[in-house]
Amino acid sequence: MTAQPTSQDQPSDQPDAATRLADLTIAVLGGTGPQGRGLARRFAASGLSVVIGSRSAERAQGIATEIAESGTLEGSLTGADNAGAARDGDIVVVAVPWDGHKELLASLADELAGKIVVDCVNPLGFDKQGAYALAVEEGSAAQQAQAVLPESTVVGAFHNVSAVLLEDPEVASVDTDVLVLGDKREATDLVQALADRIPGVRGVFGGRLRNAHQVEALTANLISVNRRYKAHSGLRVTDL
Amino acid sequence: MTAQPTSQDQPSDQPDAATRLADLTIAVLGGTGPQGRGLARRFAASGLSVVIGSRSAERAQGIATEIAESGTLEGSLTGADNAGAARDGDIVVVAVPWDGHKELLASLADELAGKIVVDCVNPLGFDKQGAYALAVEEGSAAQQAQAVLPESTVVGAFHNVSAVLLEDPEVASVDTDVLVLGDKREATDLVQALADRIPGVRGVFGGRLRNAHQVEALTANLISVNRRYKAHSGLRVTDL
Repeated sequence: MTAQPTSQDQPSDQPDAATRLADLTIAVLGGTGPQGRGLARRFAASGLSVVIGSRSAERAQGIATEIAESGTLEGSLTGADNAGAARDGDIVVVAVPWDGHKELLASLADELAGKIVVDCVNPLGFDKQGAYALAVEEGSAAQQAQAVLPESTVVGAFHNVSAVLLEDPEVASVDTDVLVLGDKREATDLVQALADRIPGVRGVFGGRLRNAHQVEALTANLISVNRRYKAHSGLRVTDL
Repeated sequence: MTAQPTSQDQPSDQPDAATRLADLTIAVLGGTGPQGRGLARRFAASGLSVVIGSRSAERAQGIATEIAESGTLEGSLTGADNAGAARDGDIVVVAVPWDGHKELLASLADELAGKIVVDCVNPLGFDKQGAYALAVEEGSAAQQAQAVLPESTVVGAFHNVSAVLLEDPEVASVDTDVLVLGDKREATDLVQALADRIPGVRGVFGGRLRNAHQVEALTANLISVNRRYKAHSGLRVTDL
């Protein structure tokens, strides 16, 4: 259910993004953390081939088995070390902690060359007053990824979606849009289609990579919202 | 229709924010620009006493008359120069251009002392690729306002609401939430109630002032959304 752009923007000389996506393998680096587990579960449940990456291949395989046993997956779910997952994936989702983000990606530059890298990382700090956005030299986590992966196409997405809801097999539908940020239309279209695989979620083009910082940082606001209202909040873009 | 916080957060020893608001005068500095005109119209339409501020009192009075003649106002709408409006307002909404923001507020520090100042300003730049967030030394426009107005209580709000929709008398209801940012609960409660006066709009507490930057900057993303989807987009927070 990607929000439909107006017709003059629509490429017409190739299969649409949802069709192209069906044949691709999705890797999720940091796939053993809450966000990574939740995304891997939802993508595999929707019928895609998914490989979880982690520092330890055994741990990744263990999490893949756990997820497969806790719900029905239309697709496949396996585990590998991060380099193996990066090699196997056509689209590689980065759901690692901010601490170590740059170093991990730099170490995988060869495996990720020529691929779409979807950065979900939120550079946040926490203190007694809650969460706040950290300054990032490159502007944002997504721009940092693009800087260390010059041969990859980096797209920012899945920043604001609740890991708690993604992970819960009892939650049939996740009530949120996913803002997708990037500079190449073919890549953002594919990642919008990837977001659309999660029931309830709609992928919405949210601008260029240079405007990724505020979408990452907005997660701090949603953490404040969640605390005040005892919610697992998300965002919908209106008038689309 | 303020999103209801959980009961343990609710102050119980005073009238609720909506009741307190009804007796207050709302000033809108920069009230002759699109965002200021739109907000002034909606607040006055809802029954509040509103005074538009501008560099020129005559221009402010002219716009006030224009708005009053183009629709039904339950409340009152007058015009004054910025200093006069700042003096008259109990809550002072700042809808001026980013260029000159700091200087204007610094010049009104005496008039604004002891009051709630609602900053709506988005520090954005524009080039061929669209809009982007400007770096602000103090972190955000709202934090800059607080820095030059140490005796006022600054709240950030109304950053992402479409001026086109606010201004259009044919638009009966505006489909968006307003994220309200601030460090004092009594002030953010009042400003949430102020947002609730606009039909369709819901005021949602969005965190402390230190997290205002990303809400201001997100307007650049909504401008990209509007361009891609030919929309007047807004945001809803889900699960509240």
